[in-house]
Amino acid sequence: MARIRLTVAYVGTRYHGWQIQKNGPSIQEALETRISCICGVPVRVHGSGRTDAGVHATGQVAHFDAPDGNAIPWQKALNSMLPEDIAVVDARAAEPGFHARFSAVSKRYAYTLWTDPRFVLPQRAPFVWSVRGLNLEAMDRAAALLAGTHDFASFQNAGTELKTTIRTLEPIIRVPGLCSGEWILHFQADGFLKQMVRNLTAFLVEVGRGRLCPEDGPRLFRTRDRRLAPATAPPQGLCLEEVFYGEPPV
Amino acid sequence: MARIRLTVAYVGTRYHGWQIQKNGPSIQEALETRISCICGVPVRVHGSGRTDAGVHATGQVAHFDAPDGNAIPWQKALNSMLPEDIAVVDARAAEPGFHARFSAVSKRYAYTLWTDPRFVLPQRAPFVWSVRGLNLEAMDRAAALLAGTHDFASFQNAGTELKTTIRTLEPIIRVPGLCSGEWILHFQADGFLKQMVRNLTAFLVEVGRGRLCPEDGPRLFRTRDRRLAPATAPPQGLCLEEVFYGEPPV
Repeated sequence: MARIRLTVAYVGTRYHGWQIQKNGPSIQEALETRISCICGVPVRVHGSGRTDAGVHATGQVAHFDAPDGNAIPWQKALNSMLPEDIAVVDARAAEPGFHARFSAVSKRYAYTLWTDPRFVLPQRAPFVWSVRGLNLEAMDRAAALLAGTHDFASFQNAGTELKTTIRTLEPIIRVPGLCSGEWILHFQADGFLKQMVRNLTAFLVEVGRGRLCPEDGPRLFRTRDRRLAPATAPPQGLCLEEVFYGEPPV
Repeated sequence: MARIRLTVAYVGTRYHGWQIQKNGPSIQEALETRISCICGVPVRVHGSGRTDAGVHATGQVAHFDAPDGNAIPWQKALNSMLPEDIAVVDARAAEPGFHARFSAVSKRYAYTLWTDPRFVLPQRAPFVWSVRGLNLEAMDRAAALLAGTHDFASFQNAGTELKTTIRTLEPIIRVPGLCSGEWILHFQADGFLKQMVRNLTAFLVEVGRGRLCPEDGPRLFRTRDRRLAPATAPPQGLCLEEVFYGEPPV
C-alpha cells in the first residue's frame, strides 16, 4: 500500500463541485473512477476540502492509498485518461502521515472581478464575475479591516456544522488580472468556512458599489448573522490556487 | 443607412469558423441573426477575413450597413443578446469608405504553444497546442528566415484561388505565455494565405523537434509545394489578435 499525493487543476464549469454527487459529475468521481480502474479495486480519493459547483482550481491537493502505487507513473497515467478540463499537475509519494485534508495548515484562493462595463472578453468569461462601478480604494480599506483573527460566522453559508467559526485571514491582496479592468483578490487563511471567500468577495463588491462601507465588515463580525451580509458571489470567479502543508510560506 | 464597424472577440471552440456554414454554427451567423433581429430586416455582416473552425479571436473586425444604425447602442444591444463565447469589444460608426476586408492593411495573429510534457493546465487547454521537446533557439533561427517578402505557396492550404501567394511577413516575435512553459508566437503580415499561420507554426515546431532545420524554410519558399511542408497545426492554438487599417503601427 502506498499513499499518493496529487496536485490537481480543473475548470469547474461543467462539474457539480469537488465532492461526489448523485445528480451530476464531480471532480472526485472523475479521479476515483480512473484511479480505481488503474488499481483494479475501488479506491477512495480524499481532497483538501470541497470546492463548490462551478468553482475552479489550479492547486487542489488530494491523496489516495493504492496497492503497489509506487510502481505506477500516476501523473502520466491519469492525464492520459482524464478529460481536458481536469489535469494532474503533480503526483508523488506522500510523506508519512500525510492527509490531504487534516495535514493542511492554510489555503489560498483567488477571486477574479471583471470591471469593464462594455463587454466581458469571452476567453475570460468562464473565470470572472462581471461587476461595474467599483470604488477600488474603498474596497481596499474594507479588505484591510477583514484581515486578522475574527469570527466569520456572518460570512458562512448554512450546511456544515463546525466547532468554531473563528479563522485567521491573511491580508487580502488585490492584483491586476490578465486583462485591463480585471482584478484578482487573493485570500489566504488557516481555513475557510462554507462559501466564505465568495461571501467576503460579495461584501467587498457591495462596498465598492457604495452600498456598504468598510466599517460594516467589523460590524458583521460582531453580529454573527449571515442574513445581514450580502448574498454569495457567483462561483465562476473563484479558484483554489494552493494548499499549504507544514510550514506556510513567509 | 449607416455603416457600423465592430471589433469582435470569440472563443471559437464550438463554432465552425467565422463564415456562415450549412452544417453548423458560425460567428458570422451569430452576429447576423442578432443584428438582423434588431434592424427588423436581413443584414449581412462582412468580416476582415475568415477564421477556421476552432480558431479564436480577440480583435476580429467586421462591418455592416444598418438602416438608422446610429440610433442604436450597438455594443450594449449585441452583448446583451450574444452568447458568452462571443463579445463585441468595440462598436462605432465606420469611417467613410471603410470596408472590414478591403480596407485592412495588415493583421496580427498569435499562436500559443504549451511545452510542459507532464500536463496541460485545463484553464489553458482550449487555447494551446501541446508540443514537447522543442529547441527554442533553433525555432528562433528558423523564424528569422521566414520574415520578409516571400512566396508562401508551400504554406498555403488548397481551397482559395488567389492572384499571388507572395506576402510580406514581419519578424515573428516569441514571448512567454501566461504559464511556465507556454510560448506565444506573434505573426503579422500584410495578408495571410489559407491556414498560413498554422502551417508556419507547424514548420517551426518541426524545426524545434529537430526533424527539420531552419534553412528548410527558404528551401520551402523555393519549392512552392505544399506537400513538402509539415501538416497544419491544430486550430485551438490560434487567435486573431488585431486587424490594422490605414497607417500600421510603428
